[in-house]
Amino acid sequence: MNEWSLTELDLEYIALGAAILGTGGGGNVYLGKLRGWEQLRAGRRIRIISPEALQDDDLVIAVGGMGAPTVGFEKFEKGDECYRAVRALERAVGKRAVALMTDEIGGSNAIEPMIAAAQADLPVVDVDGMGRAFPELQMNTFFIYGAPPAPGALCDEKGNTVVFTEATSPVWLEKLARAGTIAMGCTAAFALPPITGGQLKAWGVKHTVSQAWRLGAAVIRARAEKRDPVEAILKHEHGQLLFRGKIMDVKRWTTGGFARGKLEMDGLADDAGRALDIEFQNENLIARLDGEIICAVPDLICIVDAESGRPISTEETRYGLRVAVLGLPATPLFRTPEALAVVGPRAFGYDLDYQPLGEYVMPEPKVKP
Amino acid sequence: MNEWSLTELDLEYIALGAAILGTGGGGNVYLGKLRGWEQLRAGRRIRIISPEALQDDDLVIAVGGMGAPTVGFEKFEKGDECYRAVRALERAVGKRAVALMTDEIGGSNAIEPMIAAAQADLPVVDVDGMGRAFPELQMNTFFIYGAPPAPGALCDEKGNTVVFTEATSPVWLEKLARAGTIAMGCTAAFALPPITGGQLKAWGVKHTVSQAWRLGAAVIRARAEKRDPVEAILKHEHGQLLFRGKIMDVKRWTTGGFARGKLEMDGLADDAGRALDIEFQNENLIARLDGEIICAVPDLICIVDAESGRPISTEETRYGLRVAVLGLPATPLFRTPEALAVVGPRAFGYDLDYQPLGEYVMPEPKVKP
Repeated sequence: MNEWSLTELDLEYIALGAAILGTGGGGNVYLGKLRGWEQLRAGRRIRIISPEALQDDDLVIAVGGMGAPTVGFEKFEKGDECYRAVRALERAVGKRAVALMTDEIGGSNAIEPMIAAAQADLPVVDVDGMGRAFPELQMNTFFIYGAPPAPGALCDEKGNTVVFTEATSPVWLEKLARAGTIAMGCTAAFALPPITGGQLKAWGVKHTVSQAWRLGAAVIRARAEKRDPVEAILKHEHGQLLFRGKIMDVKRWTTGGFARGKLEMDGLADDAGRALDIEFQNENLIARLDGEIICAVPDLICIVDAESGRPISTEETRYGLRVAVLGLPATPLFRTPEALAVVGPRAFGYDLDYQPLGEYVMPEPKVKP
Repeated sequence: MNEWSLTELDLEYIALGAAILGTGGGGNVYLGKLRGWEQLRAGRRIRIISPEALQDDDLVIAVGGMGAPTVGFEKFEKGDECYRAVRALERAVGKRAVALMTDEIGGSNAIEPMIAAAQADLPVVDVDGMGRAFPELQMNTFFIYGAPPAPGALCDEKGNTVVFTEATSPVWLEKLARAGTIAMGCTAAFALPPITGGQLKAWGVKHTVSQAWRLGAAVIRARAEKRDPVEAILKHEHGQLLFRGKIMDVKRWTTGGFARGKLEMDGLADDAGRALDIEFQNENLIARLDGEIICAVPDLICIVDAESGRPISTEETRYGLRVAVLGLPATPLFRTPEALAVVGPRAFGYDLDYQPLGEYVMPEPKVKP
């Protein structure tokens, strides 16, 4: 199979897997799934291709939502923002994209490019730039390894379009696009600077659409077979169980276009008597067990319902939820010194050396070149 | 003469006249003048042409500085921001400009396009969109009378460029460009959506470069001839003396990228025993004499040194300055109902009907078609 055409069930699996990989953030995947179904029901196709199928000079555009997930819950998309951002970017570079991709497999941005791709009749590449979700644009493998920081295109649901034609660094692209997003009402669609097929093969986190699909399928299968879904996630992702407990308190504040906050949990079962707290900026950043850091970015800290394995986003956390907290290994592309400078604990203000949590295993592709 | 090539003395006159028309804002004209001189000394030319010299389908770009004047004092320009903004806009529309213009004759934006025009070897049109200075983009005659709100281009001194390719209204262009300006550090160069020669002739405030020159020259001549410079301004601009007094207090706050504040004065000479206060948002908005409004936008409220006629910007106001406050009539293009909805007292939050202050007389052009 060198092109994988998604069904509604495939989207169900991908949405679930992507929400787990969202590490508490990445936007609402449920709304994205419904909008993906809408495309399929309208007769459009969502086709996934292998990164290895691309020519080195092919142009690929990563597109998705930008902004505070808490706002995305109430301020819905019009539906063509990502498509318009892709077209605006193509006009800016004077070249058409041969495929789209997500910059961020975690959360709703796993599905956003699929919707734009269905509208544009373009394939989506089985790759992303994070293998998870992260709050800021510069935090992807492409920028870290040298992709140019411009142009990018930002669209809102009202019809405004902003093109960032020159940015002096990925951080400046982030600052300017974030300012635009906030002005647009804290959510917008953003098309990142185009990536070539060669860059994508060298720097992309591979087969993450397949990974999300298999992860979601594993959880749903475990539920159906009355096995522990939490165990299914850990096994599929080669992860570690960090904690089982009950959420005692959540503090939140939405500043600078981000949903920030802190979560406090008391232990249950084997963790009775212990306390875990997690700090987040859209995504979970750091986990402390009895005050000691046990997992930190770029490794994934995922909170799921203790029984069903359902991922719980930072917006949904509330007193009384019984949860399992899982630590999943980040891609080796995020574990180099140059990457840790951008996505490691210090990049988020923690005076802490990164300790890798377990070994990453490259996901099996569902689609061949 | 169908092209007027400016000398250093011409720039001196224009800078002084423009600063008076800046009504307290419009940015620092002194720095602009020095940078204009630099262009002339480098052998480049600043050429002014008549609006009537343009063909109806000629493309003209208005360019200038955007942001908080208080920040512009300390964060200098690199020098090519306006030029880069013009080129970015030309690329966005796929057509070259035949001339540049200022959107705002009041303050440093009288000179900014001249610097870019010298660099690009383009003429500057003897026209603007305000006949004064105003704090927001939508407050110009072109937008008020129907010019399209996109594209626009924003550049900073670091090398970042943002192009607003689609805006649903001039107010949205303002919101997005303002957000970009703030992200860039509260000052940036902005090229407004291109204007055709036809639009310029129909909607432009004409001969305002000539007006600034004659006004500046009148003040300097009065000083040389030991006549009252304040009288010279009033006579040239058909204005009214609103108040003579001493500044007692200034309150300021820089919010949303604007320099806002309130100024309190005690009367001197004929105004002894009376008090005047002025509220500003970059520019002076409204003047109250003993609590009663005596002049309001869009008419010009200009504060000048009581002796020398030197214009005093809102940033320079401080306790003890002895000043004259002048009211100058706004262009009739700002006195229509559709214009007052955008630039009248209510547009700035004052529950007040506009009372025109005197009759506007169109300035004599210094350059013929």
